[in-house]
Amino acid sequence: MTIKPWKILESHFIHKNVRIDKCELPNGMTIDGFVLEYGDWTTVVALTKQQEVVLVRQYRHGAQKVILELPGGAMDARDENPLQAARRELLEETGYASDNIIQIGCVSPNPANQTNLIYSFLALDAEKVSGQALDDTEDMEVVLKPLEKVITMAKNSELFQSMQVSAIFFALAYWDRIQ
Amino acid sequence: MTIKPWKILESHFIHKNVRIDKCELPNGMTIDGFVLEYGDWTTVVALTKQQEVVLVRQYRHGAQKVILELPGGAMDARDENPLQAARRELLEETGYASDNIIQIGCVSPNPANQTNLIYSFLALDAEKVSGQALDDTEDMEVVLKPLEKVITMAKNSELFQSMQVSAIFFALAYWDRIQ
Repeated sequence: MTIKPWKILESHFIHKNVRIDKCELPNGMTIDGFVLEYGDWTTVVALTKQQEVVLVRQYRHGAQKVILELPGGAMDARDENPLQAARRELLEETGYASDNIIQIGCVSPNPANQTNLIYSFLALDAEKVSGQALDDTEDMEVVLKPLEKVITMAKNSELFQSMQVSAIFFALAYWDRIQ
Repeated sequence: MTIKPWKILESHFIHKNVRIDKCELPNGMTIDGFVLEYGDWTTVVALTKQQEVVLVRQYRHGAQKVILELPGGAMDARDENPLQAARRELLEETGYASDNIIQIGCVSPNPANQTNLIYSFLALDAEKVSGQALDDTEDMEVVLKPLEKVITMAKNSELFQSMQVSAIFFALAYWDRIQ
């Protein structure tokens, strides 16, 4: 059996980046495909010289909860590439910067209905170089936690974002800590 | 500083499960919050007695790619709980079943704008007990791969779904394979 793609017959937007594709399936059926046209995202595992992870606590309206997260965000027109977006988000959200940032993973947050990728980065020897530079709609608290504590949190589903658990996995793979 | 939640002033739907919440932020600003009301999801790391992972290859229209994935899907009205949904999805998508299914993780796919959780399960000694039972809109090929190969794929971003990388992480944590 060979899996075939769907054929887009027509597309229209129902809201900013929400697209409905009228698609013909390989079996001839026609359905409406729901697509979220997002820009690519970045997430950063930023480690200080003291082996502490730089985290942010913020309110997330989908879950309606205040959550502790790795910094990161969507690429925008200012960013030439994912690395630059990761540096910018780290600096804006936390005031931390690093001269040693490495891409450790690149996957899809949800290939079923999102167009974008999420790039994971590891930032070593991160240092506080400024205050935060938040948008008017952002409110975040910077929190440092020991790396081993954050890994334990990830193991116990206490790092609440699936995409951030995968970023921790990529960091552990980079460090060859997966047996 | 204490991070405060947003206050919902009014809500309306612009498409099936797409909600717009007019929200008041802690700083007094008013913005439109974009929320996807999804049911909870499950994903299953199903291992045969030969230590092979049961995967499915399918077309994903968001990414417009044919992708190799762990089985899983959304809970529906037939499911009493996430475990039952995981069993059902595994059976429908692959024809495999297991008497030994363990929940290994529960996080949010995207707390920024999704309401749902994703439950990860480990299914041991999975056996083929039937054919697939796919919806009319589904077309999937069952593929078995050695566990160690799948872990290597995850490390190299070849397991393309972020939520599935986190499921592999939870399985490795369960097995105490993270140093």
